[in-house]
Amino acid sequence: MNRPASPRLARRMSYIRPFHVMDLLARARHMESQGRCVIHMEVGEPDFPTPQPIVDAGMAALRDGHTHYTPAAGLPRLREAIAGHYHQRFGLDIDPNRVMVTPGSSGAIQLVMDVLVDVGDKVLLPDPGYPCNRHFVRLAEGTPVALDVTAENAYQPSVEQVVNGWDDACRMLMVATPSNPTGTCLSQAQMRQLSDAVVARDGVLVVDEIYQGLVYAGEEFSALALAESPIVINSFSKFFGMTGWRLGWAVAPLEVVEAMDRLAQNIFLAPSTPAQHAALAAFSPETAEILAQRREAFAERRDFLLEALQQLGFRFPARPAGAFYLYADSGAITDDSFAFAQRLLDEAGVAVTPGLDFGDNQPQRHIRFAYTNTIEKLEQGVERIARFIAR
Amino acid sequence: MNRPASPRLARRMSYIRPFHVMDLLARARHMESQGRCVIHMEVGEPDFPTPQPIVDAGMAALRDGHTHYTPAAGLPRLREAIAGHYHQRFGLDIDPNRVMVTPGSSGAIQLVMDVLVDVGDKVLLPDPGYPCNRHFVRLAEGTPVALDVTAENAYQPSVEQVVNGWDDACRMLMVATPSNPTGTCLSQAQMRQLSDAVVARDGVLVVDEIYQGLVYAGEEFSALALAESPIVINSFSKFFGMTGWRLGWAVAPLEVVEAMDRLAQNIFLAPSTPAQHAALAAFSPETAEILAQRREAFAERRDFLLEALQQLGFRFPARPAGAFYLYADSGAITDDSFAFAQRLLDEAGVAVTPGLDFGDNQPQRHIRFAYTNTIEKLEQGVERIARFIAR
Repeated sequence: MNRPASPRLARRMSYIRPFHVMDLLARARHMESQGRCVIHMEVGEPDFPTPQPIVDAGMAALRDGHTHYTPAAGLPRLREAIAGHYHQRFGLDIDPNRVMVTPGSSGAIQLVMDVLVDVGDKVLLPDPGYPCNRHFVRLAEGTPVALDVTAENAYQPSVEQVVNGWDDACRMLMVATPSNPTGTCLSQAQMRQLSDAVVARDGVLVVDEIYQGLVYAGEEFSALALAESPIVINSFSKFFGMTGWRLGWAVAPLEVVEAMDRLAQNIFLAPSTPAQHAALAAFSPETAEILAQRREAFAERRDFLLEALQQLGFRFPARPAGAFYLYADSGAITDDSFAFAQRLLDEAGVAVTPGLDFGDNQPQRHIRFAYTNTIEKLEQGVERIARFIAR
Repeated sequence: MNRPASPRLARRMSYIRPFHVMDLLARARHMESQGRCVIHMEVGEPDFPTPQPIVDAGMAALRDGHTHYTPAAGLPRLREAIAGHYHQRFGLDIDPNRVMVTPGSSGAIQLVMDVLVDVGDKVLLPDPGYPCNRHFVRLAEGTPVALDVTAENAYQPSVEQVVNGWDDACRMLMVATPSNPTGTCLSQAQMRQLSDAVVARDGVLVVDEIYQGLVYAGEEFSALALAESPIVINSFSKFFGMTGWRLGWAVAPLEVVEAMDRLAQNIFLAPSTPAQHAALAAFSPETAEILAQRREAFAERRDFLLEALQQLGFRFPARPAGAFYLYADSGAITDDSFAFAQRLLDEAGVAVTPGLDFGDNQPQRHIRFAYTNTIEKLEQGVERIARFIAR
């Protein structure tokens, strides 16, 4: 078997960090293959399978031969269904032509960055935050600028941070509500203030709403309700439980959608056809009922885990209200969350995600716990962590 | 319904051209919605549905709940199956770890460019060629350099062109065999010469083999057989009939796959899970039998259409041996193939792709005919074209 030599890699690859959790995951899988039981509290996807009505719609699509390309912006019926969802859920009238269906929300973020960010443009991003976002900015040869968010502001950028961080090279602010990894939300008032600040500076606000629907306290809203509508990213992965299908969407001004469409024709051709047909069932009453039950289950797990971890000495200075993550201040327990996570896996068989994967803002004193596992498993996990800490 | 204003687009968008055939397609659809019958000879995907064993495997995967993320580089079993395919088909021993499964071959091309092309690096590409390739180079902020290929060299780059076109900024040569739009192939000797020239210049050869299996004359080979193995791109879309599923792959040196994997974790997360499970059935004997029959059907259509178009005065100075395209020199019939294609659609109800979509090398005297339609439809199309020309 020949082993061809590697050519030199492009310079940008030095910026693309691997996820540390991937190594942990590989180690966890290895341990499991050796017969050890690992409790997973690191996984960023729902443990539930895709709701049956969506699976059924996918199977029906396959049976009916829907295996050819769709338009690059998605099936017109699906774009209409998504627009309809905003009407039903939030009372918003969204032109279906403003909806761009994409291969996962990842595809949507990539299109937004490539369409709007010029070489050298700065994009403000919260730290901690979803780590891929700064890589998408890099791929567009823009410059990601971290805003070190604090628990006092619910781990969300404050207007002052945006105003002080803005300069002539700034082009965009991207926020997420609920946020990964912190699970914290922006209020409608905060969102409006951020939007006003960005719009006043002729910038673009991008709002990641991919955990929409998974909010357990307070009333939900979409940033699309703002008078100056931002660009919104969403996904069928999290709330709708369709991670492996790779389907998301963006809502943007028509001219931006036209440009995204033109680019998507070239770089994606189209989103997955079976996934799109399946997603047509995502807004049905049967699916809604299943999703409401799952939301309840997530809320229950959150309440349990939050309480249990607090009793172990983890601190949650900003109350996590959504997604399926708890972002713990682990400073009272360890001053090196990365080493802690490694030892916790090796010695206690519990997998968690160290803060290091989410940025450079005090990562060593933070750990992300995901409650994408049953209450029973979470209970076992907490027991193991308790024993591990007590040693 | 509010209509938010558009922010200014990034400069790179001025390079991203729309496909002219998209306008034609929209017009064709409009005509069809008005009750007119349009003969499609513009479509770049097989008319056949996905082979039933692959569809069955996809449905079984959904039934079994395979809807979660897979590793970013793909299911280990699928990587092994692809490596096994090279062994069975070409007697090549490929390490499965050199196989990177991607969201379509588009995903593979994007990863290759982002991982290897630095800002300002030049990438040599044949013109005419697959138009998206130069956009992928642009997105990596590289500079696509067109090699105007000629019928004398089977519309493939000659070694002289590569040698003369190479300078210190050159990083990569990308070729396709069979080629879209020309359907012409590189011989193994030509491939070796191109590889030698590129390797001697410390460059990277990327070979697009996405139409592999659809060759109707001469013996097929994979560029992976070369001593200095190039990077090879392939797809489940064309030969395997899985366009809408969006699944492809790359074979590359291990270090490049490691980098592609790291990047894919960030920008794609993973290829579609149902598609990957379905593709496990792509190499089965049952599927192979179906694909062999389809290949025969394509060969028959090619023979018919080539002969019929020649009788109408279209010229094929380089014999198209593969894919499902005929790239006609239409100079004896029209000096403006774009206007011809528009009138042919409007007045005769036949959709074809004007040369303009494939580059700047004499596009006005070329038309791409796709034989992704039944012999009966192709016959009707030829009759309509004959009447249109005779008027």
